[in-house]
Amino acid sequence: MAVAATVDRKDTPSLEPLTRLVGDDLAQVNQRIIEYMQSPVALIPQLAGHIVAAGGKRLRPMLTLAAARLCGYAGDRHVSLAACVEFIHTATLLHDDVVDESDLRRGIATANAVWGNKASVLVGDFLFSRAFQLMVADGSLEVLRILSHASAVIAEGEVLQLITSNDTGTTEESYLEVIRAKTAQLFAAACRIGPVVAGRPAAEADAMEAFGLNLGIAFQLVDDMLDYSAKQAELGKTVGDDFRDGKITLPIVIAFARGDAEERAFWRRTLEDQEHGPDDLAHAQMLLRRHGALEATMERARDYGAAARAALAPFPAGPVRDALDEVVAFCIARGF
Amino acid sequence: MAVAATVDRKDTPSLEPLTRLVGDDLAQVNQRIIEYMQSPVALIPQLAGHIVAAGGKRLRPMLTLAAARLCGYAGDRHVSLAACVEFIHTATLLHDDVVDESDLRRGIATANAVWGNKASVLVGDFLFSRAFQLMVADGSLEVLRILSHASAVIAEGEVLQLITSNDTGTTEESYLEVIRAKTAQLFAAACRIGPVVAGRPAAEADAMEAFGLNLGIAFQLVDDMLDYSAKQAELGKTVGDDFRDGKITLPIVIAFARGDAEERAFWRRTLEDQEHGPDDLAHAQMLLRRHGALEATMERARDYGAAARAALAPFPAGPVRDALDEVVAFCIARGF
Repeated sequence: MAVAATVDRKDTPSLEPLTRLVGDDLAQVNQRIIEYMQSPVALIPQLAGHIVAAGGKRLRPMLTLAAARLCGYAGDRHVSLAACVEFIHTATLLHDDVVDESDLRRGIATANAVWGNKASVLVGDFLFSRAFQLMVADGSLEVLRILSHASAVIAEGEVLQLITSNDTGTTEESYLEVIRAKTAQLFAAACRIGPVVAGRPAAEADAMEAFGLNLGIAFQLVDDMLDYSAKQAELGKTVGDDFRDGKITLPIVIAFARGDAEERAFWRRTLEDQEHGPDDLAHAQMLLRRHGALEATMERARDYGAAARAALAPFPAGPVRDALDEVVAFCIARGF
Repeated sequence: MAVAATVDRKDTPSLEPLTRLVGDDLAQVNQRIIEYMQSPVALIPQLAGHIVAAGGKRLRPMLTLAAARLCGYAGDRHVSLAACVEFIHTATLLHDDVVDESDLRRGIATANAVWGNKASVLVGDFLFSRAFQLMVADGSLEVLRILSHASAVIAEGEVLQLITSNDTGTTEESYLEVIRAKTAQLFAAACRIGPVVAGRPAAEADAMEAFGLNLGIAFQLVDDMLDYSAKQAELGKTVGDDFRDGKITLPIVIAFARGDAEERAFWRRTLEDQEHGPDDLAHAQMLLRRHGALEATMERARDYGAAARAALAPFPAGPVRDALDEVVAFCIARGF
């Protein structure tokens, strides 16, 4: 058993090396998060705590911590800036939870089911404002520039996603534009903050940002693939959420492009007209298999993953770079 | 006719002197607003334009412009900072538009009826982020501190309002806490920015902030009074929106405190249980009259107005101070 477990750890890329390297800093980040989400208005820490606690991997703040470490930073500013990154991420999640009446009719249940749309929006606003207060306390206009820019781009990406929703005419290019903005931009910003606090030259900041951007794109591609995958079902997570929402992700773009007239009619009915029968998800999965759409999506993810790894070249070899390298491998391995 | 109009202008306080004094700057603010709400994602300027155009008086950015002028500021930083203030205000309005399913059932129709909850949230996020980008471009950490703090307090106030909604046990104190946070804080911040960009001492910044805070409280008190007033009906605006939403404003707090058991049962049925009959608004207005609740609300507004005017004392007498003085009179006169 012990041997098997060891072998397993060696073969399967994981976040464990990263967590081990930045674990102490991350514990401080978590403390900072708890501290700064406090408010005399009790619903705020209550609702924020719900989503922050459920937040899972803390991948984005860990990237800030690791990037700072890789750049030889020895101070502690990266701790509260990593908390800012997580606050912005959490605010985005809360605002992403907001649903329109039409969605409710389709029976979507999210965290917001407990407190309602309005509370999700307002607590998101609070966390977003807190993030900026933390940045102001840190005092770097450069960091403020990076994260206010990222926030604007994220909002643009989310609006673009809203527009392309239910539109089977969405191209691969415009899909990539959406995920680059809504997901990869914050990965990129989280990474760039590392060299910036370490006072490293612009070329290193650019390289670290490129690492984050490509990693973020790969991460979202795998996520979108998993929504249709048997692997996701094995992990006990729901499959087909994007399908039911009419979200146009890369597997769909590919299957639609490669499909015949009858298949396209099926995609239009389910994704555009939102008319769903009990066997439609299974049929959609069959069509994705027929056209190799999930494999093609993973193919793209591997390309972006390779670009992310290549972006690490300027940085000194060693355990931190290896751990970041393994983050890429981990994000992609989730898909298999 | 011409004579009558002149007399009218003299007797009725208006925003006209303020608009005349800061009109050129305000035209630049409006240009800046149009410029910075642009995005390749067309829905953003479309939706933002809708609310910015309907935005009305531009009272908050005018306060920033006038406060800077009163402090002898001769540069042009106040223009883009006034645009930031308006962006934050607009984002707040958009997020305030977000409704829960239960509200929709009660038949509320807002700007969001056209584009939906989600678009309102995301475009609000975009404008909010843009505001921070503009502040970063301005480069003052002090201004960033003022507006990130104000944003956090506004969000807290909005959540507190959400909690006290439908609760007839709300006290005058907690009502005042809500309006101080959700409305007056941005007035206060808008004003404080003036002396800050002019590089004036902290005492002047504090005085100008006190002016804005008290003006903002008076403004919201009158607004909440008007929702039940015949004057509002004369102006062609809807009456009773707050009543239908179950919002607990000062007129209600007063009438509830002064009412007997039967009256309290009425307020509980309409505001807590949200059960409304066709004659309930008229009955509510009668109860408010019976207890002098609208007059008592105006009384409080006058007190805060007086405090606002007193806060202007340290500043040089002249047309700008007179115009700000008249803003207070205007905000209160709306109630008569």
